[in-house]
Amino acid sequence: APVPVRRALVSVFDKTGVLDLCRKLASQGVEILSTGGTAKSLREAGVAVTDVSDVTDFPEILDGRVKTLHPAIHGPLLAVRGNEAHEGDLKSHKLGAPIDVVVTNLYPFEKAAAGAEQPDSPEAASEVIENIDIGGPTMLRAAAKNHAGVAVLSSPEQYDAFLADVRSNDGSTSAGMRRSLAAQAFALSARYDAAVAQWMTRLASDDAAAAEADGAAPLPGAPVRPVVFRSYVHHSNLKYGNNPHQGNAGVFALAKGTAGDAALPFEVLNGSPGYINLLDALNSWQLVRELREGLGQAAAASFKHVSPAGAALGVPLSDQLAAAYDASAIAKRVPGGALTPAALAYLRARNADPLCSFGDFVALSDVVDEATALIIKPEVSDGIIAPGYEPEALKILSAKKKGGFIVLQADPDAELPADEWRELHGVALRQRRNTFVYTPESLGKPETSSPEVSEAVRRDLTLAATTVKYTQSNSVGFAAGGQMIGIGAGQQSRVDCVKLAARKAQTWWMRQHHKVLELPFKAGTKRQTRVNARVQFIEGTITEAEHAAWLKSFDEEPAPISAEEREAWLAALAEEQVCLASDAFFPFRDGIDAASTIGTKFVTQPGGSIGDAAVIEAAEEYGMAMLFHGMRSFHH
Amino acid sequence: APVPVRRALVSVFDKTGVLDLCRKLASQGVEILSTGGTAKSLREAGVAVTDVSDVTDFPEILDGRVKTLHPAIHGPLLAVRGNEAHEGDLKSHKLGAPIDVVVTNLYPFEKAAAGAEQPDSPEAASEVIENIDIGGPTMLRAAAKNHAGVAVLSSPEQYDAFLADVRSNDGSTSAGMRRSLAAQAFALSARYDAAVAQWMTRLASDDAAAAEADGAAPLPGAPVRPVVFRSYVHHSNLKYGNNPHQGNAGVFALAKGTAGDAALPFEVLNGSPGYINLLDALNSWQLVRELREGLGQAAAASFKHVSPAGAALGVPLSDQLAAAYDASAIAKRVPGGALTPAALAYLRARNADPLCSFGDFVALSDVVDEATALIIKPEVSDGIIAPGYEPEALKILSAKKKGGFIVLQADPDAELPADEWRELHGVALRQRRNTFVYTPESLGKPETSSPEVSEAVRRDLTLAATTVKYTQSNSVGFAAGGQMIGIGAGQQSRVDCVKLAARKAQTWWMRQHHKVLELPFKAGTKRQTRVNARVQFIEGTITEAEHAAWLKSFDEEPAPISAEEREAWLAALAEEQVCLASDAFFPFRDGIDAASTIGTKFVTQPGGSIGDAAVIEAAEEYGMAMLFHGMRSFHH
Repeated sequence: APVPVRRALVSVFDKTGVLDLCRKLASQGVEILSTGGTAKSLREAGVAVTDVSDVTDFPEILDGRVKTLHPAIHGPLLAVRGNEAHEGDLKSHKLGAPIDVVVTNLYPFEKAAAGAEQPDSPEAASEVIENIDIGGPTMLRAAAKNHAGVAVLSSPEQYDAFLADVRSNDGSTSAGMRRSLAAQAFALSARYDAAVAQWMTRLASDDAAAAEADGAAPLPGAPVRPVVFRSYVHHSNLKYGNNPHQGNAGVFALAKGTAGDAALPFEVLNGSPGYINLLDALNSWQLVRELREGLGQAAAASFKHVSPAGAALGVPLSDQLAAAYDASAIAKRVPGGALTPAALAYLRARNADPLCSFGDFVALSDVVDEATALIIKPEVSDGIIAPGYEPEALKILSAKKKGGFIVLQADPDAELPADEWRELHGVALRQRRNTFVYTPESLGKPETSSPEVSEAVRRDLTLAATTVKYTQSNSVGFAAGGQMIGIGAGQQSRVDCVKLAARKAQTWWMRQHHKVLELPFKAGTKRQTRVNARVQFIEGTITEAEHAAWLKSFDEEPAPISAEEREAWLAALAEEQVCLASDAFFPFRDGIDAASTIGTKFVTQPGGSIGDAAVIEAAEEYGMAMLFHGMRSFHH
Repeated sequence: APVPVRRALVSVFDKTGVLDLCRKLASQGVEILSTGGTAKSLREAGVAVTDVSDVTDFPEILDGRVKTLHPAIHGPLLAVRGNEAHEGDLKSHKLGAPIDVVVTNLYPFEKAAAGAEQPDSPEAASEVIENIDIGGPTMLRAAAKNHAGVAVLSSPEQYDAFLADVRSNDGSTSAGMRRSLAAQAFALSARYDAAVAQWMTRLASDDAAAAEADGAAPLPGAPVRPVVFRSYVHHSNLKYGNNPHQGNAGVFALAKGTAGDAALPFEVLNGSPGYINLLDALNSWQLVRELREGLGQAAAASFKHVSPAGAALGVPLSDQLAAAYDASAIAKRVPGGALTPAALAYLRARNADPLCSFGDFVALSDVVDEATALIIKPEVSDGIIAPGYEPEALKILSAKKKGGFIVLQADPDAELPADEWRELHGVALRQRRNTFVYTPESLGKPETSSPEVSEAVRRDLTLAATTVKYTQSNSVGFAAGGQMIGIGAGQQSRVDCVKLAARKAQTWWMRQHHKVLELPFKAGTKRQTRVNARVQFIEGTITEAEHAAWLKSFDEEPAPISAEEREAWLAALAEEQVCLASDAFFPFRDGIDAASTIGTKFVTQPGGSIGDAAVIEAAEEYGMAMLFHGMRSFHH
């Protein structure tokens, strides 16, 4: 039920808006109780204020440590309205009328803890401790508990809404508003004590360790261990988690500090992302963003199951690639006919491994323009993340999948936490986020005598190193001409990764063979059927049953590629300046041997193995350049 | 500095041990202040108690809502010892002597919230709210802030340590002990308010949603969103996270409820696990545990980069496999010569793909016996997790890697949380843990007409389904005779997974060919060199440079396996009852086509695709049995 506002208790650290709030309350005849600095500034501004010490008939003692911890404050805060015994208690003990509004907020404790010089000295610790507020949280908590009668304002951001509520209820507060405010007050008090507990348990634990190191007897009983609280704010529910039977799934923003600011680093513009969509989106976004940062070009990625199927830069296409990617037909659909850098990056990323990219999640480093949206339009795809969308592009994308296409707008300026946490089997693991960005300069000098490393090669090595950073480990990736051409993901051995990626690069290259380009598909054969049929044609390992089904896509039996034609064509891949990056060092030469089979010319890897010398020697044998970048990028 | 204990304030919900504690304090002449129920029970037990209301000269009011919120309690709690002004305040306002010890604890709020019938009714909510403690946390917090002078006992588990501290300090409390207790008190108060905030924000948010659904005007201002707190207790630091430049890495236990009980579900018996070791350990342990639960047999797994390279059951070896796995030589090292089920499971798991298993993490479902430890001994491996170790086995394992071999003891009875959280790029994601356990019964009836599905086949299908559950997605796996023989991990397309796993299964089978078994290795050729050389021999795709290096391992040039021999040998794999499991449905027939190339006879998968009919038809064509189990197991 609405509760008339007659008596307010105001005691704030952050004075933003409080004067205006109290003026409005006072003008409606509300009695304002206040303490110390707040009372002074209100009074100076001409607002009539009753001192808490007049209410309690007791002075502030202990340098202000005890001001409001008094029955004359907590009686009126905690008394249940309409409860005769409670109202009798207030009267018989002359505790005054119930308090209807509490306005209070807390000094952000983490600032006090961070601001102390020599944070671990006893003097600094005493200073931090002096900042621990006892009276404020008690008022907040008492008012929040008794929200059946009391409205508790714990942040200046709530004042407008509160005043609007009071206006629309003829001078009273609504029950819904009070409960909402109470919930936020408890969230604040929890975050506040979480910050204190984190600081104090760490200190106590360090103390105990230092004492023990000094040879002191350990404290009796279990030693205190540092506790950490992570605070999350619900954003939305998910249909389910990794799998349909994993329910209770949801997306939460990380609450920062005592204030609990919480914003997602992206917005949902269209559709309903699922759990794995979000894993793909958040990883692919980081990938393209780092490519943009490291290489200064538009970048795109096509993700499936938290690994890239393709990643590329906005580099113009050769005639051969333009033919393989059907660029002329695509250009006809695009206004003006020109492919923008974003469009080129997408076209390359999607065509690195179009069989794998079926139903992918797309990431773009740049604002998505109409040309790019039109190229995405006919592809089977789940969603996209990018820093922005031209209005026409957003319209095109939002109409995909009968309107269900997921469109996420990433916030490139989002402040991200330094650490990342995950829970697994009842254990929590913490680590710093992997914020290292590969650049052409970060790759270092070749460890080998030849060949020369051009700028384009440094670009492609950087592209490959960044791509494997966001590929499930172990991973390696081949790049050429501004795009990934083969990505080996999630293998238990490095040499298996290289073989896997090399096969993919070969398939990518074979897709450019004229016999593949000229496959006589029946008119109306679906896009993905063509993609799959080409791969089957190239691999040449299909079963009889499959062959029969495969033939149905064609007007006539296609002429096979002979072993000689295949060999000759694959040999030409060696002219393409093929670059390889590995997410960790090669322990043996076998990975280099495997890379040589597709004519790889350039390799970058962290280095640091006891096998480095043998690996460099193998590179020399094959005439490869090898660059160490020193930055491992396992990804799990 | 030590602070003499003269005055204690005692007000507890959980009365465990409090009588004994107070008796001891009273016998040392400590004045005991107390309230309500605590005072009554102490008095009945003959302990002299001063009522708080006598100290405050003020009765308990509002049904006990206001008891200790009084300057006569909080002055003596918060006064700084040795501060003349503070001591003067206590004297001039007759607030009594400082309080030296506070003993208080809190009713676990989550129980109040969970216990309410019809938890979301207004009546139930009022009942829960009645349980929110204001005075208790205030005392806790005031005493903890002022721990320079006050010891605060917030749990009965602290009493013994506290009494020991007082004994060893001649009736005083030590500064270290007081700080440690204060830190724990703030952790408790943070967890308490976190529980309140979680409950109340959820309720307020539901309210707002319900009101809006009823057509009510939305509350002014931003709606309250549910907040969630995760509370972690530090266990140990890690050298680094996924990569050396990702610092601040650590392992934490999950704190449960207001009490904050926190225990890891494993113990470190030897060595120092790294971040990825733990990912491997916690995943592999779940895998073998579920195999044990679902199949009632000893199970083992060999993990690399968070995917299994092998997984197997304790099934006896055929002569052919015994030869390939060198079982007779191994048996000679084992006391009694017999391989136990655990040893068999390990031998099979490690030999599924020994090239990948180099440097693996091992998981065993059963207590590790001496035989198993002796087989593990010479292998290059990082660590092991198991529910227990025979003393001799622990000795053997702990001596591996110059004493650095990681030995973890899993707690099979650990209570695990229902949900699992992870942070990614400043976003927190929640889902239920995937606790589904595959069993032979869970696989369902064949969707196909033939062949017959034996118990051994159901076992192998269950093994394969469970293994791909813990393999990075997309994943498929082949099993035969009680072990995995080929695992396809982390691919962006399902058909690529099948091809990858099929190649692995073929390599496994070729390793049993007599020409491989008879390879004329030079004496003293290292174990892993042999493993790799065999794979190179089998794959037959090595470069000239590699071939030259490869030859060095042999006394004479080995006779190659001809294409005909290869084909004939691989054809025999079809007699091995090869089973395939997929972590999600086959969208097209191509995965089945690819599986047919190694003679796969049995397939299990969730089903549920619009392509099911075509996939079943393909299975029929190849004479495969296909069983739907309905439980997708994507794993990321």
